[in-house]
Amino acid sequence: MLAGDRLALARLITRVENRMPGVAEIMRSVQPRLGRAHVLGVTGPPGAGKSTLVDRLTARLRAERSSVGVIAVDPSSPFTGGAVLGDRIRMQAHTLDPDVFIRSMATRGSLGGLAAATGDVIKLMDAFGFPWVLIETVGVGQTELDIIRQADTTVVTLVPESGDSVQAMKAGLMEVADIFVVNKADRDGAHALMAELRFSVHLHYSSSVSAKDIDWEIPVLAAQATNDVGVAEILAEVKHHRRALEEAGALGKRRQARRRAELRTLLVEEFAGRVMAAVERDPELVAVIDAVAGGTLDAYSGVERILARLLRQP
Amino acid sequence: MLAGDRLALARLITRVENRMPGVAEIMRSVQPRLGRAHVLGVTGPPGAGKSTLVDRLTARLRAERSSVGVIAVDPSSPFTGGAVLGDRIRMQAHTLDPDVFIRSMATRGSLGGLAAATGDVIKLMDAFGFPWVLIETVGVGQTELDIIRQADTTVVTLVPESGDSVQAMKAGLMEVADIFVVNKADRDGAHALMAELRFSVHLHYSSSVSAKDIDWEIPVLAAQATNDVGVAEILAEVKHHRRALEEAGALGKRRQARRRAELRTLLVEEFAGRVMAAVERDPELVAVIDAVAGGTLDAYSGVERILARLLRQP
Repeated sequence: MLAGDRLALARLITRVENRMPGVAEIMRSVQPRLGRAHVLGVTGPPGAGKSTLVDRLTARLRAERSSVGVIAVDPSSPFTGGAVLGDRIRMQAHTLDPDVFIRSMATRGSLGGLAAATGDVIKLMDAFGFPWVLIETVGVGQTELDIIRQADTTVVTLVPESGDSVQAMKAGLMEVADIFVVNKADRDGAHALMAELRFSVHLHYSSSVSAKDIDWEIPVLAAQATNDVGVAEILAEVKHHRRALEEAGALGKRRQARRRAELRTLLVEEFAGRVMAAVERDPELVAVIDAVAGGTLDAYSGVERILARLLRQP
Repeated sequence: MLAGDRLALARLITRVENRMPGVAEIMRSVQPRLGRAHVLGVTGPPGAGKSTLVDRLTARLRAERSSVGVIAVDPSSPFTGGAVLGDRIRMQAHTLDPDVFIRSMATRGSLGGLAAATGDVIKLMDAFGFPWVLIETVGVGQTELDIIRQADTTVVTLVPESGDSVQAMKAGLMEVADIFVVNKADRDGAHALMAELRFSVHLHYSSSVSAKDIDWEIPVLAAQATNDVGVAEILAEVKHHRRALEEAGALGKRRQARRRAELRTLLVEEFAGRVMAAVERDPELVAVIDAVAGGTLDAYSGVERILARLLRQP
């Protein structure tokens, strides 16, 4: 893979995505080659045109002769299962381009599993040599937040139709957004949404600038991604944000914080597996589990007894 | 609370929801009073009219002189943050009824935290004596699945507009649904959606009946919840499902499996907290964390070193 073999990259991604044996070795060996890619996240509610925007951004980056890795993540359960398939179709224009590598990732069973797997796939693409890695997620839920926090720059895409709920989601959006895009900006309500976002952004900026690692007032841009309108401006703003991060020394700090969080998740996952295995080997603890399952013992008391026994051996 | 004091119930729920000290004691003391409530889950995509349906079902149960506990859970991040507020407004008709207790719950920070907290709130309502506990969730994501799995009977609500994505979500929906409701059934496409669901349900039933704990072909019902059309039929079907569960001995088995899963989640959470505390107290392990944060060591190697040190004391 490090020699530029796309097929090898695809195979490694599959290994990592399915958490197959050897993941630790793979990630260890790519570690020295990490940190060159800029990771751009695109999120927003369903129907905001995220895939189209990612497609147009990819086309612009290709016009600059950059190669691009794209990860379309769909962490959703039954109710939005169609997104992955749709992404693949929408990105068709680039599937024959050897300098664009597109990968869809869907729900993993385990807690934190998808965010961790996405982080590893980002690293594989980074190590492969893509200067840009684009992550798209259907923007709902904790898992998506964990995914989007792995981006260096995050574009939150809204549409005029999402206007009525912006009020409620504003606080959370301000935390994740580095750039706001109002897509489908030819529709009714686009101007009002932009004005509202600009007002909120400015208030938020004034109140939080001293607490931030960079001096950055979130720009609010209009776009019509399907017609390639406003896409050049978005890319320029992404690059602007990247420079601002670098100049403030914030890019390194953010990546450090991210690696710390990633270590914590992996550690907890690994421990959880070992604890459950230890419990299931011990007949006395199996009896505790059965009592909880049978409803004669509450879960908190069960946990207490299990911990008392497992930790007795100090 | 056990004497029927609603204010005491509300205070206990707040304690449990915020994971304040004393949760274990509270849950221990209500344990002997559990298992009488039937837990009815209502889920589906945003905009399917779940809150209205819950409101109408509550009215019907009240007409039968049953008291009702309602939990509106919104596990979503920034993008759907408006649901909780909306629920409160929609349920206003019942807020003055002393035999209806409505509680909204929103995102918790910790992994698995919201599902666990919801489970505990269900128990408090059960112990308080509500024969019916209704849970409504915005149906997207892993957390919602963990929440809805705590219901004895689950109603999946769809609308004709969700038709185009039913294809993709079908497999997952069949796993959670005990009853399908096509709401807003006066709209275009309702008949087609019902026909499609019935066909899928029947195929699924034929292929999986031997593996199921009850012999139940998921009914597909039409409704217009805003006009109270079809709601009586839904409630009748819920009761029918409950009887089927009881007669097959499946209700007890499902609850056992649920308590087992709940214990596992609590145990893993508790261990995670202790492991992280142990790591942060140990300067050598703090050095490992710093190496991972600094990018000189990969996360998998970091986990390996931490485990080797923590587990050396056997």
